[in-house]
Amino acid sequence: MDTDHGCFLGKIEQMIRYVIWSSGATGIVIGISGGIDSAVSAVMCCRALGGERVYGYTLTTSITRDEDIHDAADLCRSLGMHHQVMSIEPVLSSYRQMPGYVEDPYLLGNIMARTRMVILYYHANREHRLVCGTSNRTEYLLGYCTKFGDNAADFQPILHLYKTEIFKYAHELGIPEPIINKTPSAGLWAGQSDEADIGLTYSEIDMALKALETNSWVSTNLVEEKVLSLVKRSSHKRANPPNLLALH
Amino acid sequence: MDTDHGCFLGKIEQMIRYVIWSSGATGIVIGISGGIDSAVSAVMCCRALGGERVYGYTLTTSITRDEDIHDAADLCRSLGMHHQVMSIEPVLSSYRQMPGYVEDPYLLGNIMARTRMVILYYHANREHRLVCGTSNRTEYLLGYCTKFGDNAADFQPILHLYKTEIFKYAHELGIPEPIINKTPSAGLWAGQSDEADIGLTYSEIDMALKALETNSWVSTNLVEEKVLSLVKRSSHKRANPPNLLALH
Repeated sequence: MDTDHGCFLGKIEQMIRYVIWSSGATGIVIGISGGIDSAVSAVMCCRALGGERVYGYTLTTSITRDEDIHDAADLCRSLGMHHQVMSIEPVLSSYRQMPGYVEDPYLLGNIMARTRMVILYYHANREHRLVCGTSNRTEYLLGYCTKFGDNAADFQPILHLYKTEIFKYAHELGIPEPIINKTPSAGLWAGQSDEADIGLTYSEIDMALKALETNSWVSTNLVEEKVLSLVKRSSHKRANPPNLLALH
Repeated sequence: MDTDHGCFLGKIEQMIRYVIWSSGATGIVIGISGGIDSAVSAVMCCRALGGERVYGYTLTTSITRDEDIHDAADLCRSLGMHHQVMSIEPVLSSYRQMPGYVEDPYLLGNIMARTRMVILYYHANREHRLVCGTSNRTEYLLGYCTKFGDNAADFQPILHLYKTEIFKYAHELGIPEPIINKTPSAGLWAGQSDEADIGLTYSEIDMALKALETNSWVSTNLVEEKVLSLVKRSSHKRANPPNLLALH
């Protein structure tokens, strides 16, 4: 690992240690999906605190693939962190009984993401631990996440990293190849693919985001225009909810 | 209603209309507990949009009192808004089956508040409506709320109002007396009382908060010291989760 990256990653570790120390928390709870974002986040938590204070939960549904569960378990074992696999189907079934429930993959996906948040916070609250978020800069800016679901956490160690940067660091951090090589997916329905959902590759998106960020959010081509419209449409997911409170 | 209050309340209505217009939402979803905060918030939503675009949900548990359900139903009827009563016990039971579950009123209270958020958002997402928050300035500053639970919403119309101000406006807004006169409670366990939980009356708390706000958060007596320590301890509930993202 070259010095530049070493220092860069050191800042993340430092931030995690500061958050834990200043809150008096006893450890970290993190959702481990078998994907690259939670893998990189977990590595950083383990580097900052040691694996014995990091608790991974793989919260599965009927569409979770066995290989993702295995990849998650392998990763946690290699990092020396705790790991538990737990199905959220009983909770999803209880929502299905709700009056007014309609089956819809998008609505159910939101319930899944929020149910995972509830469970991660339950286990965090139980032992005074903090919940580690696993959102990256690309999905945060695009709003490709569920409000108060997968974007809800006590700290966000990789929020400043573009998805393409995460792929780059993943190799250096020793993330297992099966995790690096799988198609990125939010896993909210069978066969879901982030890039197919969005209609652009991560490479295209990140290039457009970087151009927009340096060019004061003015778009100069069709890809940037599409990305910009996603950024605008999702601004409510990044902003404080509108209110009339002005503290003085 | 005197002009001063009329103008003050007008600002809330204006904010609600702006949020709905700018988001293109079709209406508002709000949790109606039978307490004063959700009642005042609901009145403001109905004044801003008309009751036919406001959807109230009373999400009950086994400890919800019948009188609260009746008060909620009476209020919604008098405002001409939609109202549905729904038990969240099936969802709570599914969490009780979760491996590692321990029965604890505090942990269960957090699950209740977050489950209500999931259901309100389900019904909001289903019809492209926004979720109205019902947090007031006092509980927000004290952190007397569940992170990503009752404090999670798309807009917060009464966040700038102290609890004691809400009591004052409630009379002018025509909130029914049974709602105004009941003991304030988060309703997370039987017999819960906010003031007993906190160990101070709302009158004491608000006086201390106003003094602290005008005195640059320096405490000058024991009540202010206690309030200040609650404000400090809950700062993570009001802040963005720590991260290294700096947008330029």
